[in-house]
Amino acid sequence: MKVKLASSYGFCFGVKRAIKIAEGYKNSATMGPLIHNQNEIDRLKNDYNVGLYNNLTDVKSDDTVIIRTHGIPKNDLKELKQKDAKVINATCPFVTTPQQIVKKMSQENYSILIFGDENHPEVKGVKSYGKDQDDVHVIMKVEDLAKISFKHNKIATVAQTTKKKEVYLEIVNALILKNKEVRVFNTICDATFENQDAARELSKEVDVMVVIGGKNSSNTKQLHSICLENCSNSHLVENSSELKKEWFRDKKSCGLTAGASTPDWIIQQVVNEIEKY
Amino acid sequence: MKVKLASSYGFCFGVKRAIKIAEGYKNSATMGPLIHNQNEIDRLKNDYNVGLYNNLTDVKSDDTVIIRTHGIPKNDLKELKQKDAKVINATCPFVTTPQQIVKKMSQENYSILIFGDENHPEVKGVKSYGKDQDDVHVIMKVEDLAKISFKHNKIATVAQTTKKKEVYLEIVNALILKNKEVRVFNTICDATFENQDAARELSKEVDVMVVIGGKNSSNTKQLHSICLENCSNSHLVENSSELKKEWFRDKKSCGLTAGASTPDWIIQQVVNEIEKY
Repeated sequence: MKVKLASSYGFCFGVKRAIKIAEGYKNSATMGPLIHNQNEIDRLKNDYNVGLYNNLTDVKSDDTVIIRTHGIPKNDLKELKQKDAKVINATCPFVTTPQQIVKKMSQENYSILIFGDENHPEVKGVKSYGKDQDDVHVIMKVEDLAKISFKHNKIATVAQTTKKKEVYLEIVNALILKNKEVRVFNTICDATFENQDAARELSKEVDVMVVIGGKNSSNTKQLHSICLENCSNSHLVENSSELKKEWFRDKKSCGLTAGASTPDWIIQQVVNEIEKY
Repeated sequence: MKVKLASSYGFCFGVKRAIKIAEGYKNSATMGPLIHNQNEIDRLKNDYNVGLYNNLTDVKSDDTVIIRTHGIPKNDLKELKQKDAKVINATCPFVTTPQQIVKKMSQENYSILIFGDENHPEVKGVKSYGKDQDDVHVIMKVEDLAKISFKHNKIATVAQTTKKKEVYLEIVNALILKNKEVRVFNTICDATFENQDAARELSKEVDVMVVIGGKNSSNTKQLHSICLENCSNSHLVENSSELKKEWFRDKKSCGLTAGASTPDWIIQQVVNEIEKY
C-alpha cells in the first residue's frame, strides 16, 4: 500500500537543520542537549560519536562544540570562543532572530519585553542579548505586566518561538494602551500549527491514517484527535512494531503524520512496513 | 452659589492653544477653519479680525496665515512658504507627532498604515508626510485591511487622534499576525475620555450639575447622561439664558462641565450667572 505523507509533519525546520549540522561533525559535542529528543541524541552518539557537554567547564581547547537549537546565553558563547574551541552554531534561525532584535532594540534604548518562560533555554539565550539586563523583562501572561516598571516609554517586544499568538496579542494590547510606542516583532513559529493543519487536510482524503509519536506526547495526541475527527480509522503508534495488518485490509489509501519529537528514521521504518502490505 | 468646574471640560488642549495663538495675530487669516466651531470662528473675526482662507490661491504675499489645529498637507505648507506669507503654526502638537512619525518611518522604509477617516483634514495632513504615497494606507476598520497590499513586511502605524482605541487594537492585532514587525504608535488623544471621567467624578459630589453644550452635540449629550447617573439634578444648557433659578434653590454645591465644542467665554457667562444666585 502506498503511503501519503502530510505536507508538514514531525521535526520542525530548526530541529532538522540542527541534526544535519551535527551529523557533519563526527566526534564533536553539543553544548546542552541539541534538541528535546533523547532517541535522537542517542542515535547521534552511536552513529556519529556526537557527545554532550552540560557545563562550559567540560569544554577543552580544540574541542568542536555545537550550539543547540535553542541557543545559549551571549556570555556562554563568548567564554566558549575564549577557550579556543571550534564553535559550530546550530541555533535555529528563528531563535537567532529574537536574539538579534533584543540586542539591536536595547542598543536603541527600548525597554525590552519577552513573552515566554524565563526558565526555558531559548528565553535565557534571547534575554542575555539585552544591553541593560534590568530593563529586559520576561512574562508568561498579561497579568504579569502589573509587576513591571519599564525604564523607557518605548517598548520593543518579542515572543518565545513556541508560544500562543492569542496570549501574545493580549500582552501587546495592554502595552499599546500604556506606552507611546510599542515595536512588536512576531517571532512565533508556525511549525506546530502547520503540522496540525496538514494532518487535518490529509485525514479528510484517506481511508487509514497513521500518527507516529510518543503516547505521552501532548502534541502527538492532539494530532491523533484531529485525524479521528475526519477519519475514524486513525491509529497512533510509537514505531513500526505496533502496526496492525487489519487496519489496512480492503483500504485504498493511507495517510501519515508524526509528532514534533519523532525522528525521520522512525517515520521511514513505518513507511517501509506499510508499503509491504 | 459657588461653582466647581470639572477637572477637565470643554475645548481640548490643542484647540485652546490654537485660539490663544490666533488671538495674538490680529488681521491674520487661518488656512481652513481654525477649529470645528463656528461661534468661536465668528468671535475671532469680530474681536481680532482673524479671517478665513479656504484656498491657497487666496493667500497674498505679506499675509499672516495661521495653520489650523488639524494641520495641512506638506505640499500646501511648502507652497504657503513660497508665497512669502508669514506662516504661524497652530497645528495641535498631538497632530504634529503622527505627521513626524509618518515622515520618519517612511524614510526608514516602513509601509505606513493610518487608522482614520481619509477625508478628515487631520488625516490628509498626516498622510502627506509619507515618502511613498502609494505605500501610505488609510483605513477605518479591520475589514479594510484585506484590500491593502503593503510593499514591505515592516509596518508602522498611527491613528487619527480622536479615534477609538478598541478599533485601533483590532487593526493592530490583524497586522501583527501577518507581518514580521509592526511598529505601533499610540497617537490617540485622551481628551474626550478625560472630560467624561472628570464629569463622572464631579457629579458624584455636588447637588446640582450643569452641562453646557449644543443640544445636538453627541459628546455633550453623552456628558449629560453620565452626570444624570450620579446626580438626578443635572441640566443641559446651551448658554446662560437657559438657566433656571429653581434648580439651585436650597442647594449647597454646583458642578459644571462643557462639551468639546463649547468656548470658554460661554462657560464663563454661565459661571457668572450661577454665582449671582
